[in-house]
Amino acid sequence: MKNKIIYNYIGKVLIAFSILMLFPMIICLIKKESLIPFFIPFLISLLIGVLLNLIKIENKTLYAKDGFIIVSLSWIVISLISALPFYISHYSGYIDGVFEAVSGLTTTGASIFKDVTILPKSLLFWRSYMHFIGGMGVLTFVMAVIPLSRKDKSMHVLNAEMPGNNVAKIVPSTKKMLLYLYALYLSLSLLEIFFLMIGKVSLFDSLLITMSTVSTGGLTFLNDSIASYSSYVKLIVALFMFLSGVNFNIYLLLVMKKNKAILKSEELKVYILLFIFSIIFIFINISNLYPDKTTAIISSIFHVSSIMTSTGFSVGDINVYPTICRVFLLFLMVVSACAGSTCGGFKISRLILCYKRIKRDILKIIHPNSVQIIKYEGKRVDDTLIDSNSTFLFLYTILLIIITLIVSIDGYSFEITLNAVFSTFSNTGLCFEISNFSIFSGFSKIVMSLGMLLGRLEIFPIVVLFSELKKNI
Amino acid sequence: MKNKIIYNYIGKVLIAFSILMLFPMIICLIKKESLIPFFIPFLISLLIGVLLNLIKIENKTLYAKDGFIIVSLSWIVISLISALPFYISHYSGYIDGVFEAVSGLTTTGASIFKDVTILPKSLLFWRSYMHFIGGMGVLTFVMAVIPLSRKDKSMHVLNAEMPGNNVAKIVPSTKKMLLYLYALYLSLSLLEIFFLMIGKVSLFDSLLITMSTVSTGGLTFLNDSIASYSSYVKLIVALFMFLSGVNFNIYLLLVMKKNKAILKSEELKVYILLFIFSIIFIFINISNLYPDKTTAIISSIFHVSSIMTSTGFSVGDINVYPTICRVFLLFLMVVSACAGSTCGGFKISRLILCYKRIKRDILKIIHPNSVQIIKYEGKRVDDTLIDSNSTFLFLYTILLIIITLIVSIDGYSFEITLNAVFSTFSNTGLCFEISNFSIFSGFSKIVMSLGMLLGRLEIFPIVVLFSELKKNI
Repeated sequence: MKNKIIYNYIGKVLIAFSILMLFPMIICLIKKESLIPFFIPFLISLLIGVLLNLIKIENKTLYAKDGFIIVSLSWIVISLISALPFYISHYSGYIDGVFEAVSGLTTTGASIFKDVTILPKSLLFWRSYMHFIGGMGVLTFVMAVIPLSRKDKSMHVLNAEMPGNNVAKIVPSTKKMLLYLYALYLSLSLLEIFFLMIGKVSLFDSLLITMSTVSTGGLTFLNDSIASYSSYVKLIVALFMFLSGVNFNIYLLLVMKKNKAILKSEELKVYILLFIFSIIFIFINISNLYPDKTTAIISSIFHVSSIMTSTGFSVGDINVYPTICRVFLLFLMVVSACAGSTCGGFKISRLILCYKRIKRDILKIIHPNSVQIIKYEGKRVDDTLIDSNSTFLFLYTILLIIITLIVSIDGYSFEITLNAVFSTFSNTGLCFEISNFSIFSGFSKIVMSLGMLLGRLEIFPIVVLFSELKKNI
Repeated sequence: MKNKIIYNYIGKVLIAFSILMLFPMIICLIKKESLIPFFIPFLISLLIGVLLNLIKIENKTLYAKDGFIIVSLSWIVISLISALPFYISHYSGYIDGVFEAVSGLTTTGASIFKDVTILPKSLLFWRSYMHFIGGMGVLTFVMAVIPLSRKDKSMHVLNAEMPGNNVAKIVPSTKKMLLYLYALYLSLSLLEIFFLMIGKVSLFDSLLITMSTVSTGGLTFLNDSIASYSSYVKLIVALFMFLSGVNFNIYLLLVMKKNKAILKSEELKVYILLFIFSIIFIFINISNLYPDKTTAIISSIFHVSSIMTSTGFSVGDINVYPTICRVFLLFLMVVSACAGSTCGGFKISRLILCYKRIKRDILKIIHPNSVQIIKYEGKRVDDTLIDSNSTFLFLYTILLIIITLIVSIDGYSFEITLNAVFSTFSNTGLCFEISNFSIFSGFSKIVMSLGMLLGRLEIFPIVVLFSELKKNI
């Protein structure tokens, strides 16, 4: 990490983040709650940010490696700062605060609070607000705000934070692309708030639910998540979770009226088909558990939307689901939704590429002399992409095993351990049998926090950071 | 499957198998038990074999694809025939019989019998004997027995049955290689029988335990596996399980006094280190559960040997193991031991290649312009091998998920379901919480039987067979 431009970038991120911290302070003023828990981290963020920005840079070249390091370091530093409001207000210890902050920023939605109703409104806002910031990406926001000098430089950072996103190919300028993305994100949010308020949800509650939905986060201000709301609200939330799981490129194409390109999207097709299939599959397996079919169908739709998009909202009855539903939902959790959305997990596009790769290799065995080309979304796929896809799966599997092993030290049942790890790593946050993550040891919480970051940043940035740190020791 | 040479080969396999069925008939005569359960399958095998051999072949060319089809079809047909002794003697239904036969031949060791002590001696012999045949491979035996006309032809079949084995490079002639392998296999067996008889185990019992050990099978003639034997016997069995997990090439090199090549073996090093580490890891986590440390250390050594080599013997106390040990042993189960041994699972050599691949790809991110070469066992690894390794991991993961989903219909706990599927797919046979597989539905048993075959033949042959069948329908 000799490249001083890294520190400069992180400084910019911290300044931008301190500005973002003004919003919860406004909530404090409205709700007449103490400003201190937010003012201190605001000040820390601003000061360090300004100091880091004072560092003189000789060499302005930014390499791909630096992009990874900037992203991973920024996320770690911001997580450490975002934990302070919980800690300063004495609602949690510092490690618990970090877990909650990472869970918020990575849009996981796993919580360490046994009872969230005792938290002040500003902290409840903070939890959903972290989702909202993290959903789009911390660096993405900075990029949208600061003036961009050179295009290639910033792309390294953006690629590291949004590996699955290739909007750039649709919109030529980076800046324009980011503004489009934010416009979409805000439009989706306003629409959900509107529909929730029709369902008689208060403005504040609608705002919080919406921020946790469009970011596919999952933290709420009630201990039973969305269970106490009407069927209408549940279905609206389910709809917006589903919409947030779509690749944002699709919306861009929709706005640009490129309907042909949308119809060509294999990922969208598989996403919709898997979504419908999953609802039917869950419904068939749980319908006999309910006296009326409407509750069963709403439960199926809601939980499939929630888990497939890695949101993690629940309508409360998930623990009655039989084993087959649990295994299936765990699979959906790991796969998750489309690339280029706010979702976590392995992503459907990767699954499609895996499938095509297997098909090609089997055809190669049957017809050794034939040439097999892999096409995706109508275009030929580069071998490098298929290779990095494989490496990603290896790393994904190995990291899941390692984290599961560490968390299993706590001695909870096999299902809870595996479920908690998969749930945090895929940024879902929902876990069978347990309603919150307070039961785990501090060490497990740190490891799962790292897991959430690994999952959110799609592994490589964190791994590159650690291998650089190792080299410098 | 237009190539008629396939049927010809399967005919040869069936004739060879009918000869192999003479041994259990000898046991019937010695133990004065009915010959019928073995005589009928013997006759069926011989008749179909002779008939298939009468088919005239125009084209004698054998392609790689044909090798896969011959292997997978042979294994399926032989499994169906091997189920007959259980069915004819009325000790099981036909589906249960098939499960037991597949479990035997694939050296899994999962059983559907609640009480094995009621079985006649000849059937007990048959179970361990199937292990012994399957451990080395059904086709391998045929190849060693029938005259080989062309070298390339038979290699396709051998490669399909023993994908990890590359003894051919050490010994130039295929025939010679097979004879060496059998000599090793038999020597190891005789040694174990000798040491077990020193421990006062009867000849018949020693023979059965040995056949289940060297093949890394795991079926026994007692309901509590090896639990009732002395510590000496337990340690001898553990030692021979460990030895059977070594790549047989290592023994060949040892006989040929090529010690340098042995020291260069990365797989052997990792195998030994992982073995020692695992024993210490398990011991630390279970030692406080035992009043005396000797029992704890024997339990650790025994179960690590048993699970890592995919044997599946147990000394009875495995259900007291805490979650961390269960997760760890599940990981060992999936990884298993060395390629070119009688073990199942993913194999250590593949794990090493995965690790090297990840390392290379991360270095590529950090230094985009550098050239990174993967070396294994001192030689540069071909990209094709790394690719097929990735495809194997994809298929492995996807098949595990699909089989788990199907078996979870039965409604057993998450842990039992996952464990049973991993245990059969990796050809281990040991499962926490349940002592036998009788609890599962017929459908689950069929699916797990298919899983055992997929695991034993390392997926590709079965997949090629199914894609050929699909094409012909």
